Amino acid sequence: MTNTTKMWQEILEQPSVLERCKSSSEAVILNIVEHLKKQHIESVVIAARGTSDHAGVYAKYIIEYALEIPVALAAPSIFTTYGKHLNMKNCLVIGISQSGKAADVLEVIKSANSCGATTVSITNDTQSPLATESRFHLFCNAGLEKSVAATKTFTSQLYLIALLVAAWSGNETMEKELSLIPKNITKVILTSAEHIKNKAERYLYMNECFILTRGMNYSIALEAALKIQETSYVRAKAYSVSDFHHGPFAMIEKDMPVFVYAPQGPALKDIIEMINKLKECQAEIIVISNSKEVLEMGNCSFEIPQTDNDMISPFYNVVIAQMFACNLSLTKGLNPDCPRGLNKVTITK
Amino acid sequence: MTNTTKMWQEILEQPSVLERCKSSSEAVILNIVEHLKKQHIESVVIAARGTSDHAGVYAKYIIEYALEIPVALAAPSIFTTYGKHLNMKNCLVIGISQSGKAADVLEVIKSANSCGATTVSITNDTQSPLATESRFHLFCNAGLEKSVAATKTFTSQLYLIALLVAAWSGNETMEKELSLIPKNITKVILTSAEHIKNKAERYLYMNECFILTRGMNYSIALEAALKIQETSYVRAKAYSVSDFHHGPFAMIEKDMPVFVYAPQGPALKDIIEMINKLKECQAEIIVISNSKEVLEMGNCSFEIPQTDNDMISPFYNVVIAQMFACNLSLTKGLNPDCPRGLNKVTITK
Repeated sequence: MTNTTKMWQEILEQPSVLERCKSSSEAVILNIVEHLKKQHIESVVIAARGTSDHAGVYAKYIIEYALEIPVALAAPSIFTTYGKHLNMKNCLVIGISQSGKAADVLEVIKSANSCGATTVSITNDTQSPLATESRFHLFCNAGLEKSVAATKTFTSQLYLIALLVAAWSGNETMEKELSLIPKNITKVILTSAEHIKNKAERYLYMNECFILTRGMNYSIALEAALKIQETSYVRAKAYSVSDFHHGPFAMIEKDMPVFVYAPQGPALKDIIEMINKLKECQAEIIVISNSKEVLEMGNCSFEIPQTDNDMISPFYNVVIAQMFACNLSLTKGLNPDCPRGLNKVTITK
Repeated sequence: MTNTTKMWQEILEQPSVLERCKSSSEAVILNIVEHLKKQHIESVVIAARGTSDHAGVYAKYIIEYALEIPVALAAPSIFTTYGKHLNMKNCLVIGISQSGKAADVLEVIKSANSCGATTVSITNDTQSPLATESRFHLFCNAGLEKSVAATKTFTSQLYLIALLVAAWSGNETMEKELSLIPKNITKVILTSAEHIKNKAERYLYMNECFILTRGMNYSIALEAALKIQETSYVRAKAYSVSDFHHGPFAMIEKDMPVFVYAPQGPALKDIIEMINKLKECQAEIIVISNSKEVLEMGNCSFEIPQTDNDMISPFYNVVIAQMFACNLSLTKGLNPDCPRGLNKVTITK
C-alpha cells in the first residue's frame, strides 16, 4: 500500500525544504550575527509552544554548548496570565511558532522589544504577527504544511537555529556538517522507510511507550513522543535517562516498549547503561543509533548516518520518529493528517 | 484500615516540618538577601533532578513573577556529558537536591562558583557535598525521609524558595500568607484525608491519567504525576492547559481520568475553558479547587483552603496529590514506600 498521507509527503519533502531554507536565510543570519557581536548578550530567552517548544529545547542545548551563554525557556503565562514583564535588556529573545500566530509567544516578544532586547522570530509565514513584531525574522520557507502533525516546519526550525548558532560561534566544522544534512536525510529515508513500515506492525497493539536519550537529543525524544501521541493515540512519554532513574523507572515492566536514541557521542555511555538496566527488566527496546554494537542491543533497531556530533544527530533521529509515527498511525487504521480534537493553528492566549 | 506507611507518616509531618524549616532558615535568608541586593543579578539558573526539579519549576515561576528576572532551568548534561561551562558571572545559581548528593547538580554549582556567581543550595543534609560547596545553604530541616517517595522534603524545598523570594522582593503580604501555610496544610489533611481515602477506590482500575493546570501550579502537576507514577505505576502525565491544546488533547477519550488543578486566581479562566472542553469529550474530571462553582464541575472534587495567590495554592495542591498517591497505592495493594526499581538517593552522573 502506498502511503498517500500529507504527513508522509511532507516528511519526504524535508531535504529540499532544508536546502531552500538555508539559501533563503543566509543573508539574515549574517545580519543577526553582526548585530549580536555588538551586543553584550548575558542570556537567551526562548518562547514557543508544542512542537516549536521542542525546537526551543534543541536551541537551549546547542546555544549553551556552542556559546556558553545560559538559556531560559520562557514560561509564557508569566507574561499573559500574570501580566508581568521580565527585565530582558541584555538578552537575545527568540520566539518560535510555525504559524507565527501563537499569541503568548507574541506577548513575550513584545515585552522583550519594550525593554530593548534583541528579538528574533522563527516562523513559516513572513507576514505573521510574530515575524513582523520581532527585530529579525528567520523564515522556515517550508511551503504550506497541510498535515496537522508538523514535520517539515519542525526540521526547518531546527536547521535555522543550528545555522544561526554555527555562524554566531564561528564554528566552520559545524557549518560543513550542517550542509550535509539534507543529503543525509535523503539517505535516512531511502535506508529506513521500508524497514520502518514493516516494523510498525510489530507495534500494532502498543498503547504506551517511553522514549529515552540524554543530552541534545532530548528535544527529539520530546518531539517523537508528541508525534506518536498525536497520530496514533499511544501514551508516549520522553525522559532524559538521568531523570528516568528518579521515579519513572518504576513504570518499567516486561515487554514495555522503550525507544532509545543512542547516537555515538558523549552521551552514549550513560545511554548504554540505561539499555542494560532495561534489558534486565525485559523491556522491549527499540534502538535508534549509528553504532553497530548498540544497534544489536535492540529488539528492533533503526540505523542513522554516521556522526558523533550531538548537534547533528537530532536531524536524523527526528526523521525516524516522524516516519515511525506516520506508519504506526496507518497500521492502526488511523489518519495521521487529522488527529482528533486538534486544529493546525493553536492560538494559545 | 489505618495507613501505617512511612509515606503517610511523612505527609502528616509536613506542618511541623515547615514550621521548623522556617525558623531555622530565617537568619541565612536574611544573609542571602543582603548579599543579593549588592549584586547585579541578570538572571537565575536552577539545577535539580526528579522531584527537586519540580521545586525548581516552582522557583522559576515565582522568581520571574515576583522579581521579573529571567530564570533558566539548567540542563546538567551541558556540564557533565559535554564538559562545558556557562558564563554565569551575574547569575544567582540555585542547586536543589534532597540528599545534596546529586553529582550533576554539584557540577553546575562548581562551575558557577568558578565564574563568580552567587550560589545557593537547598538540601536536607547540612554536611552534603552540595551544602558545603555552595556559598549559601538553605536547610530543609525535614528530618530523615524514609519513604522513597519524597513528600516533606519537597514541600520544605518549596517553602524555602518562597520564603527567600518573599524576603528578596520585600513582599510582606506574601510573608504573611506563607506563615499561614503550616496551619492550612493541617486543615487540608483534616478536611480531605478521609474523603481521599474513600475516593481512591473509584480509581482502583485506573492505569493512566492526565494532570492539567496553568501557571505556577504546573510544578505541582508535574510532581503529582511523578508521585502517582512511582507509587501506583499509573501512567500519569502533566501538562499546562496551553500546551495540552497542541497535540496531547488527541489522547482524550470517554472516561479518561484528568486531574485538574483549578485554584482561584489569574489562571482559572483558561483552566475552566479546558474543563468545559474535556466535559464535551466525557472525560472523567477530578477537580482540585477552592472555587465552589469549579468544584461542582468535577466527577470527583477535592477542596483546598481559600487563596487567590498562585504562589500559595501549590502547597495545598501538592498535599492533595501526595495523599491521593499514597492511598491509590494502598488501594491497588502496593507499597508506596518502596517503588520497584528505585533507590532513595539517585546520584546521577
